[in-house]
Amino acid sequence: MTVGIAGLGLIGGSIGLALREPGRRILGFDPDPAAREIAKSRFCLDEEVSLPDLAQADIVFVCAPPDAIVQVAEEISIHRGAQTWVSDCGSVKSDIARWATAAGADWFVPGHPMAGHEKGTARYATQSLFRDARWLLTPSDKTNSKAVKAIESLVIAMGAKPIRLVAAEHDQHVAVLSHLPHLVANALEAVAAPLSQREISGGSWKDLTRVAGADPALWSQILAGNADAVSAAIDAMITELELAKQVVATGDRDQLRLLLRAASERKRVAGK
Amino acid sequence: MTVGIAGLGLIGGSIGLALREPGRRILGFDPDPAAREIAKSRFCLDEEVSLPDLAQADIVFVCAPPDAIVQVAEEISIHRGAQTWVSDCGSVKSDIARWATAAGADWFVPGHPMAGHEKGTARYATQSLFRDARWLLTPSDKTNSKAVKAIESLVIAMGAKPIRLVAAEHDQHVAVLSHLPHLVANALEAVAAPLSQREISGGSWKDLTRVAGADPALWSQILAGNADAVSAAIDAMITELELAKQVVATGDRDQLRLLLRAASERKRVAGK
Repeated sequence: MTVGIAGLGLIGGSIGLALREPGRRILGFDPDPAAREIAKSRFCLDEEVSLPDLAQADIVFVCAPPDAIVQVAEEISIHRGAQTWVSDCGSVKSDIARWATAAGADWFVPGHPMAGHEKGTARYATQSLFRDARWLLTPSDKTNSKAVKAIESLVIAMGAKPIRLVAAEHDQHVAVLSHLPHLVANALEAVAAPLSQREISGGSWKDLTRVAGADPALWSQILAGNADAVSAAIDAMITELELAKQVVATGDRDQLRLLLRAASERKRVAGK
Repeated sequence: MTVGIAGLGLIGGSIGLALREPGRRILGFDPDPAAREIAKSRFCLDEEVSLPDLAQADIVFVCAPPDAIVQVAEEISIHRGAQTWVSDCGSVKSDIARWATAAGADWFVPGHPMAGHEKGTARYATQSLFRDARWLLTPSDKTNSKAVKAIESLVIAMGAKPIRLVAAEHDQHVAVLSHLPHLVANALEAVAAPLSQREISGGSWKDLTRVAGADPALWSQILAGNADAVSAAIDAMITELELAKQVVATGDRDQLRLLLRAASERKRVAGK
């Protein structure tokens, strides 16, 4: 079996490490020579090939930056082997799902591994990056079910848990569960910027701002690609904060307790 | 040397464990028999005493809930030994600092250890809770400098780092660095509540919501005690989110990159 990886950063490199074993040959491509060298030095692939050759693999993962995914998928579709199934790893799914439907690309399964961290190159790739992580897939009713099953079996081989979702629903979920937290972390850092002694912060501050300052090049593409859902999530967040402010401003302990009990109950339910 | 602890919860119990050693006798008081039993079973104190007897110790830490601190301090002031220095562990300092000044209690050093977690009883007390933590002290120019030095030396003995601050400045800082993050975590949970598949969340969500749902009884007192500064912090947060929303809604990658670069730069500076 051959697995092609288009884009040898943290995600592509980690897929290579997670899948590389006897009986599976990992082919890798990246337009950036430096990225290729790092991935090779970390043993993320068996062979460096051109994108047309990569498109002949049994399975191809497109791990390009969000704005480049459709373009890479189109290039692959030109050179694609008759039995090649393709997936991608972008954080936003509506656009690429729409492209697959419009292009009649029933061999393409839009995907999104819920793993990664701030360090974006294959230098930080690990075999275990996807272990116990959710790997979201958003096939449409037009997608070839063999393609979906083939991608799912590799996702499972990497230790992740495949979950099928409708693309639009996926984007609403990640707007709240991933994109909003990043913007919230940035906003908290902005609020704290004028403080003279912010080094006195404790554990809660560290937790809430860990993801602040994430890669502007990557995140501008993610947020632009999911602008409507993210805007709605920010609006909902502002509404909740305005409610909290109204209650805090009264200084009324009973009202505050009610507000906090609702949060406590919500957390308890969510924790189940 | 004798150290008195009034209030045998997580903080009081951990102070006991951190200070208990040959040459230092730990006296403990709590109005709740169950709390006393837990603290004794965890070896947090050498001797259980009444509050008037506790007030004769060389140093007393008041570890009562926020709303009870002034009352306990007043009770201590009635029975206080001539050389007894007293501090407290409340999260908000302006009110208690004002009380100390008004009462002429130059022997009282308002304090706030920046440590703790969701589990509020002495069952979770540890000797190392304060290790490497900041311990904020807000003496006024009326506070006896011997009292400040005595408290600071015990804080250091517990492995923490004492930092002096003006009470009002303290409250502004914790409004942003501690109280706001708790409300933000609660608001995020509220925004996510309607999602059908919120179990797909990843690491950033987990980080940003860890402190959600904190003890309503405790936090209603903390937020009520710091209502003005917390309201101002929420306002600043809403302003930042509105700015982010304006930029996100345009979907303009260049504008988004500028917004994210500012956040990235802020995080870099803050990280130093």
